[in-house]
Amino acid sequence: MNYSRQHELTNIAKIVLEHQNFTILCHRNPDGDTLGAAFGLCFALRQLGRRANVLCSDPIPPRYEAIYQDYEPQQMEEDYVIAVDIADTQLLGEKLASYADKIELCLDHHVSNTGYAHISFVDPASAAVCEFMCFFVEALGASMTQKIADALYTGLATDTGCFKFANVTPQTHRVAAALLEAGAHHWQINRRMFDIKSRGRLMVERYALDNLEFYCEGRIALLYLPWELVQRSGADDGELDGISGLTRQAEGVLCGITIRQQPSGALRVSTRSSEPFDCSRVCQALGGGGHPRAAGCTLSGPLEQAKAKILAQAEEELKGCAR
Amino acid sequence: MNYSRQHELTNIAKIVLEHQNFTILCHRNPDGDTLGAAFGLCFALRQLGRRANVLCSDPIPPRYEAIYQDYEPQQMEEDYVIAVDIADTQLLGEKLASYADKIELCLDHHVSNTGYAHISFVDPASAAVCEFMCFFVEALGASMTQKIADALYTGLATDTGCFKFANVTPQTHRVAAALLEAGAHHWQINRRMFDIKSRGRLMVERYALDNLEFYCEGRIALLYLPWELVQRSGADDGELDGISGLTRQAEGVLCGITIRQQPSGALRVSTRSSEPFDCSRVCQALGGGGHPRAAGCTLSGPLEQAKAKILAQAEEELKGCAR
Repeated sequence: MNYSRQHELTNIAKIVLEHQNFTILCHRNPDGDTLGAAFGLCFALRQLGRRANVLCSDPIPPRYEAIYQDYEPQQMEEDYVIAVDIADTQLLGEKLASYADKIELCLDHHVSNTGYAHISFVDPASAAVCEFMCFFVEALGASMTQKIADALYTGLATDTGCFKFANVTPQTHRVAAALLEAGAHHWQINRRMFDIKSRGRLMVERYALDNLEFYCEGRIALLYLPWELVQRSGADDGELDGISGLTRQAEGVLCGITIRQQPSGALRVSTRSSEPFDCSRVCQALGGGGHPRAAGCTLSGPLEQAKAKILAQAEEELKGCAR
Repeated sequence: MNYSRQHELTNIAKIVLEHQNFTILCHRNPDGDTLGAAFGLCFALRQLGRRANVLCSDPIPPRYEAIYQDYEPQQMEEDYVIAVDIADTQLLGEKLASYADKIELCLDHHVSNTGYAHISFVDPASAAVCEFMCFFVEALGASMTQKIADALYTGLATDTGCFKFANVTPQTHRVAAALLEAGAHHWQINRRMFDIKSRGRLMVERYALDNLEFYCEGRIALLYLPWELVQRSGADDGELDGISGLTRQAEGVLCGITIRQQPSGALRVSTRSSEPFDCSRVCQALGGGGHPRAAGCTLSGPLEQAKAKILAQAEEELKGCAR
């Protein structure tokens, strides 16, 4: 993080420290980064004698238990509202929607942040909010306890696929080193986040391996997950997102397509690609959008028609990719 | 790495630089660490005007291609022989066995190193040989090129499960940061090492998910891989080792057992456990050995008898584990 951005964080820390009571908001369908950053910040503020609570519209999945196990909400009058890892107030979810116009400070790393807060610190160069939160904790003058390090490590690891993705920079590893120095239970956290799978997730994985279809000489893989299976498995959204990534695992696959039937009957399409295949173009052509490596759209049924549509677009995109 | 160990590396570098021609040996069934460290060192020595070759008893699996793609063996008279990541001369393999008593320098991180070389530098505090090789390249006075960084990053990532395992330390992350600064193609390497799976590996995974058996209220998982399947899949040893890890993925499993039928009919057992289950005790009782989290043994058939034996031992060990 360069000097001017660090300086910004220092100034924001001064403003924050003028207040006593904090409400910290996570995004709906919470992931490791929004939770890790929110609880890490909460613990730092409490250490400094402030009152602070973390709120989320949705229940926190049990796999993040280690982050919040010792957390108890505190009685307080609301004062200063901070949103973490929330690009848009739409992502507050139903229960927190009323906070949309009361957010004093937003700490985020999404380039698409809509600037809804009074003060915004958005750092797309950070792989996770937890990455720069490490500097913010320091700027606040809090010490990096093991509990804070565990929370921040969780977000850093989950947003980078355990340091596997293209968003990792030298700074990401330097922050990880600092969190390990502070005693983060890194491998125990990683085991919980990346190795242990619920029976439901394993059920869907097994179905995926049995039902993956290959097209265009194995360069496109397609998986259809019927609603009945998803429901029976009990796998949550985060677990199902992981399944989308499996489609491009097979050697030679450039584009993996997952079609998830919704309870309404609509078909939610997630695509994942390898260079040089641009799946955002495929999804845009069908009314969706996203990034070159991960994009999505929603199609109406029947399934065979939807499959034909997405496969036709993907084949078109494939033509532009050299063998 | 503390000062005295760094000083040792500096002294070893001085001795190495007195020589002109180098033969660098990898262990049999080569993995990312032995290859990354050997080629990284080879490129560094060539950069310093020396002649250097890398030798291995077994063919190098194609997934490591990025490490050695520009490598061409050089004509030279043999001079100074260096072994990397080789704990015991047994691991040289058949083709390199004749080097066993000619090894001048051994660079390793296995605590079990037998001290067979004239000079040994063994650093069990390093998660990978590639971790301290980063310091050795510096001690030699070579610059950390992108090519060397790619080689060393490969070993660092593969020996730590992409920074996921308990062997990762703050130093591991600091070295990773330095390799990324030097331009290592980190996410491309990670994709090749951790995401892309051969059709053979996927075939075995699919079989595993379909055939995993659970015992003791889901706390023990057992998988049997018949030789016919392994042969048909064409999956190599490294790929099959990954399968053993899958057995303890299911939530609640403390011990995962994989039984691989060998062409001879013998049954090779790999066990993987989660704390507090000690699978080395299970395997020791059956004539094998290993670490608390990963151990192995070999049993004779028939399968049902072997299964009963290993399950009885595992149940015994389970009694000592609190629920």
